[in-house]
Amino acid sequence: MRDAPTPTWDYVRDGAEIYRQSFATIRAEADLTGLPGDLAPVVVRMIHACGMVDLPADVAASPGAVRQARQALRDGAPVLCDAQMVASGITRSRLPADNDVVCTLSDPQVPELAARLGTTRSAAALELWRPRLAGAVVAIGNAPTALFHLLEMLAAGAPRPAAVVGIPVGFIGAAESKAALATGGHGVPYLVVHGRRGGSAMTAAAVNAIADVRE
Amino acid sequence: MRDAPTPTWDYVRDGAEIYRQSFATIRAEADLTGLPGDLAPVVVRMIHACGMVDLPADVAASPGAVRQARQALRDGAPVLCDAQMVASGITRSRLPADNDVVCTLSDPQVPELAARLGTTRSAAALELWRPRLAGAVVAIGNAPTALFHLLEMLAAGAPRPAAVVGIPVGFIGAAESKAALATGGHGVPYLVVHGRRGGSAMTAAAVNAIADVRE
Repeated sequence: MRDAPTPTWDYVRDGAEIYRQSFATIRAEADLTGLPGDLAPVVVRMIHACGMVDLPADVAASPGAVRQARQALRDGAPVLCDAQMVASGITRSRLPADNDVVCTLSDPQVPELAARLGTTRSAAALELWRPRLAGAVVAIGNAPTALFHLLEMLAAGAPRPAAVVGIPVGFIGAAESKAALATGGHGVPYLVVHGRRGGSAMTAAAVNAIADVRE
Repeated sequence: MRDAPTPTWDYVRDGAEIYRQSFATIRAEADLTGLPGDLAPVVVRMIHACGMVDLPADVAASPGAVRQARQALRDGAPVLCDAQMVASGITRSRLPADNDVVCTLSDPQVPELAARLGTTRSAAALELWRPRLAGAVVAIGNAPTALFHLLEMLAAGAPRPAAVVGIPVGFIGAAESKAALATGGHGVPYLVVHGRRGGSAMTAAAVNAIADVRE
């Protein structure tokens, strides 16, 4: 008598082949026709991170935003992240200039700053970005209050980042903060996903695609 | 002559109030009626992390999985994560026993292991879990190959984890790996999101909700 066979599963085990098939599936299923040439591959990678091919309808960016953010990274700009998950998701080997990836949320000054400013810690943490904000690439993937706070800082004359990837997620303020970013009155290049969807994975994927054109 | 007024935005700045309104919105819009009592709050937190109230239709769990995973964490089980983003998303202050949060993906042994086993690094990294797998809470939020590899390890007699939160995302193998987990032949309690959706934020949110009943 023999033992029952061990169950096995037939699946692709080659990482490069998984990427190739994934991106081919996305290009077959997603409607990318409305997107400028340099934005489309960024959106493909964002779809890869979330599994949803209907994402393009919610994506908006200022003309040239991908090019401007990419050039800033090549010039050594830091990536300023609102959450540690965003920072964790940025693939360091894709960054063109060994760029710093910064998240100030766990800085010990933040709780007191938040209390003093009457806002969330996610928003208050951006005050610590000021010395590095000029020319930086901003990646906000979690907190709507952080994106609103950035817009308030810009309106009050804070240094200009090179571009803002603004994709906070959720139900309270997320859609509104992204709509405010996309009005563009601040003059800063931007990329958003309108509505409630967003998050750290989509945001990190956008930065990873901007950083390196390789798929 | 006065300067033009600085634009301002009206939004909720109180973190606790944002949480309260977010969870109230989710409970008003999401159909949680089909979910067991201890699973519903976990799914609410997962929805909070992704902004999508239609998530419950794709969630499946073995009976008692939340209770069993929660008890394991109270007993000090480590959380074994397939990706650093998942580990980053787990709120340490919610863990009941100062539990270890482990991600072996960047271990220097992994590239050689992957080459030898003919699989992805995400899958090969799970080989390093073996000494801690018995009774652990597994959180797979990125790689379908990692979830398939876990099932193969279990089928071949590896130590049993206390529960598997299996929510990899994407187009190649994600839905299939979660369907394989949910067949349950391995006898391990599980929580999945069927289909292509998933990811590190949803997975970390599930662990955070299991770890601590507070919202």
